Amino acid sequence: MQDRLAYQVALTEPFDRAVEKVILALNQEGFGVLTNIDIQATLKEKLGTEFRRYVILGACNPLLAHQALQNEPLAGLLLPCNITVEETDAGSLVSLVNPEAMLAVEPLISNEKIRDIAGEVRNRMENVAGRL
Amino acid sequence: MQDRLAYQVALTEPFDRAVEKVILALNQEGFGVLTNIDIQATLKEKLGTEFRRYVILGACNPLLAHQALQNEPLAGLLLPCNITVEETDAGSLVSLVNPEAMLAVEPLISNEKIRDIAGEVRNRMENVAGRL
Repeated sequence: MQDRLAYQVALTEPFDRAVEKVILALNQEGFGVLTNIDIQATLKEKLGTEFRRYVILGACNPLLAHQALQNEPLAGLLLPCNITVEETDAGSLVSLVNPEAMLAVEPLISNEKIRDIAGEVRNRMENVAGRL
Repeated sequence: MQDRLAYQVALTEPFDRAVEKVILALNQEGFGVLTNIDIQATLKEKLGTEFRRYVILGACNPLLAHQALQNEPLAGLLLPCNITVEETDAGSLVSLVNPEAMLAVEPLISNEKIRDIAGEVRNRMENVAGRL
């Protein structure tokens, strides 16, 4: 089911509140946030350019990640699962990756266990979107 | 060109040296390392399970990332580019993602600018592999 890259939710909350809300919803679905990349700050520092507020959160469920890595070490290339939060005129926009959309090539696409895990993560990402 | 998920290079260097070598090669090709996930430590902490030494490095070229994000905000779901380093009996194994393999679905797959950027990153990842 590689039908969509992302689930998107528009929020009226301002950026900082939206990030907190996303992290809470991820935790409630069993994901820890391992990485948090501040794109605005990074582009300012590296290039001196202005960019709107935009973060990339890297979320991971330890048990599912462990199962995936035991089954296929290359699964690490798809970890953690990304969620972006960016400011908009109306508040914030949250985009959650659909992990099934990442399974485009071998050795992942025909690995049933990996597909099962991606399906489970997809379900949880849908739940996270529903909590926002 | 979604032919392969990764470039893999087996090194005789032990794990820590291999990680240093990979970070240096990434820097030489214009990538900074924004994230460094220690899978062994994370799984030990979260699950109490043992795992071999394994890190996921998140690499990013600021200029190319900026171009991608300006063209398509959802490109953040594919950032940064992952490189894994894991210990093996013979030393270390390095796996570098092929970013073109990530462009499986819309709105990315038919976006020419995004495909151009992915192609440029792919070339650089090939160069990194060649430097190892």
